[in-house]
Amino acid sequence: MKNLGYYNGVWDELENMSIPMSDRVCFFGDGIYDATYSRNHVIFALDEHVDRFYNSAKLLEIELPHTKDEMKALLKEMVQKMDTGENFVYFQATRGGDPVRNHVFPAGAKANIWINIFHKEILDLNKRVQLITMEDTRFLHCNIKTLNLIPSVMASQRAKEAGCFESVFHRNGRVTECAHSNVHIIKEGVLQTAPTDNLILPGIARKHIIEACGQLGIPVKEEPFYLEQLMDADEVLVSSAGALCLAADQIDGKPVGGKATELLTKLQDTLMQDFLERTK
Amino acid sequence: MKNLGYYNGVWDELENMSIPMSDRVCFFGDGIYDATYSRNHVIFALDEHVDRFYNSAKLLEIELPHTKDEMKALLKEMVQKMDTGENFVYFQATRGGDPVRNHVFPAGAKANIWINIFHKEILDLNKRVQLITMEDTRFLHCNIKTLNLIPSVMASQRAKEAGCFESVFHRNGRVTECAHSNVHIIKEGVLQTAPTDNLILPGIARKHIIEACGQLGIPVKEEPFYLEQLMDADEVLVSSAGALCLAADQIDGKPVGGKATELLTKLQDTLMQDFLERTK
Repeated sequence: MKNLGYYNGVWDELENMSIPMSDRVCFFGDGIYDATYSRNHVIFALDEHVDRFYNSAKLLEIELPHTKDEMKALLKEMVQKMDTGENFVYFQATRGGDPVRNHVFPAGAKANIWINIFHKEILDLNKRVQLITMEDTRFLHCNIKTLNLIPSVMASQRAKEAGCFESVFHRNGRVTECAHSNVHIIKEGVLQTAPTDNLILPGIARKHIIEACGQLGIPVKEEPFYLEQLMDADEVLVSSAGALCLAADQIDGKPVGGKATELLTKLQDTLMQDFLERTK
Repeated sequence: MKNLGYYNGVWDELENMSIPMSDRVCFFGDGIYDATYSRNHVIFALDEHVDRFYNSAKLLEIELPHTKDEMKALLKEMVQKMDTGENFVYFQATRGGDPVRNHVFPAGAKANIWINIFHKEILDLNKRVQLITMEDTRFLHCNIKTLNLIPSVMASQRAKEAGCFESVFHRNGRVTECAHSNVHIIKEGVLQTAPTDNLILPGIARKHIIEACGQLGIPVKEEPFYLEQLMDADEVLVSSAGALCLAADQIDGKPVGGKATELLTKLQDTLMQDFLERTK
């Protein structure tokens, strides 16, 4: 398979897959997801991603039909069907279906399970990226990985039009995260990242960065930081499943970072090593 | 037809309809909608709903494939296929499809057009409803009728569990709107309703209420109001396409309204008369 689509036990190339119009994704975007990568057909950090997936479902009161172990086995089985071992591994659950459109939960419905896998490799950490900033106008449930992603779609489009990799969101100057990544700064040897409240997704790459800092003896502050700190940081980092720890060299057209390259390289090497070890 | 589903030129009973998994609704809820009612197979306030639909699309930079006239003709044609003349008439547009999941807009894609029509009558205005209140945690684009509706789903479910009709949202005490209705108060002969900023949907039933107030010589204030004013109002009204102007008698279990019944009845009669006239 090149671009595998799976829906409630049926799978095929995504272009051949269809889903019932009654699925609540169609009218409400009523579902949650998670995503990671595989290498050599081995899924990276699967336990952590499946744990977060179940937590997102719990926060939205979506009842999943499988146990965590069943879900992991299913994802492993699907990855084996791929032509290549290096893939984006995406899975989501939607809150059942309705006979007619109705906001309230459908009675007794279990979630629909979706999977989408296609060839994609994690990004080269040696290349610096460019960012733009935008006011964060999203809802106050950013800790849940939902399918209500229009603000992230719009922000990603704005970044692309600016020739940039990502949009950094801020609420009145307080930096939260990016459209599909977390964001962190290094200043005077300390890594600072926004705390995991309802304004950001508790990123798994973010967690790995904090763990790597622990191993390397780099102090970590999980405290809010602001636009001025972002622009003035020794390094600005973005992280996601596909971008373990990318450094920026420009934000809104102004140069940033590049002042803690040694520390940055140590951190990136540790993270990449971990990824390679766990996907052998 | 009993529950008509339409997608890009194909229609059938909704239970027989499917849509491609590549539609961006599946991964991002990336689309907009509008909805009204028909009576005697005549669609109420179609021009106004189609105008708002095109405005929502414009605000999200979704390129629609039809002219407004084509869209109206299509909706009228579909309503004629229904077994009954009294229907909920729902239509939406999603931002095309992608070969692989990708936040940024698909290149050159026109929107997918969806319709869903099923038997439903507008609500009896003689029956008072019960409400609950909830903190408004939605995004700051509530003026756009998008398919990112999880907060409204959750709020509707909470209302249902409380045996109530609707949830009234407020931001730090400032009343915005409900999960799927606008909300207004009458106090000392004046109708007050939140202004049409990015915190509320510019409701078409809301607009009709303001117009009816004009005809009846009832002064209207489009200014923010707060929870204390809501609880202390002479009447509390909710409005939507299916609930032209419903009065509440209870919020969070406490009695409200019932102190301007004569004015209320005049307003409701005017609105119902207009609905009946325009769907003859």
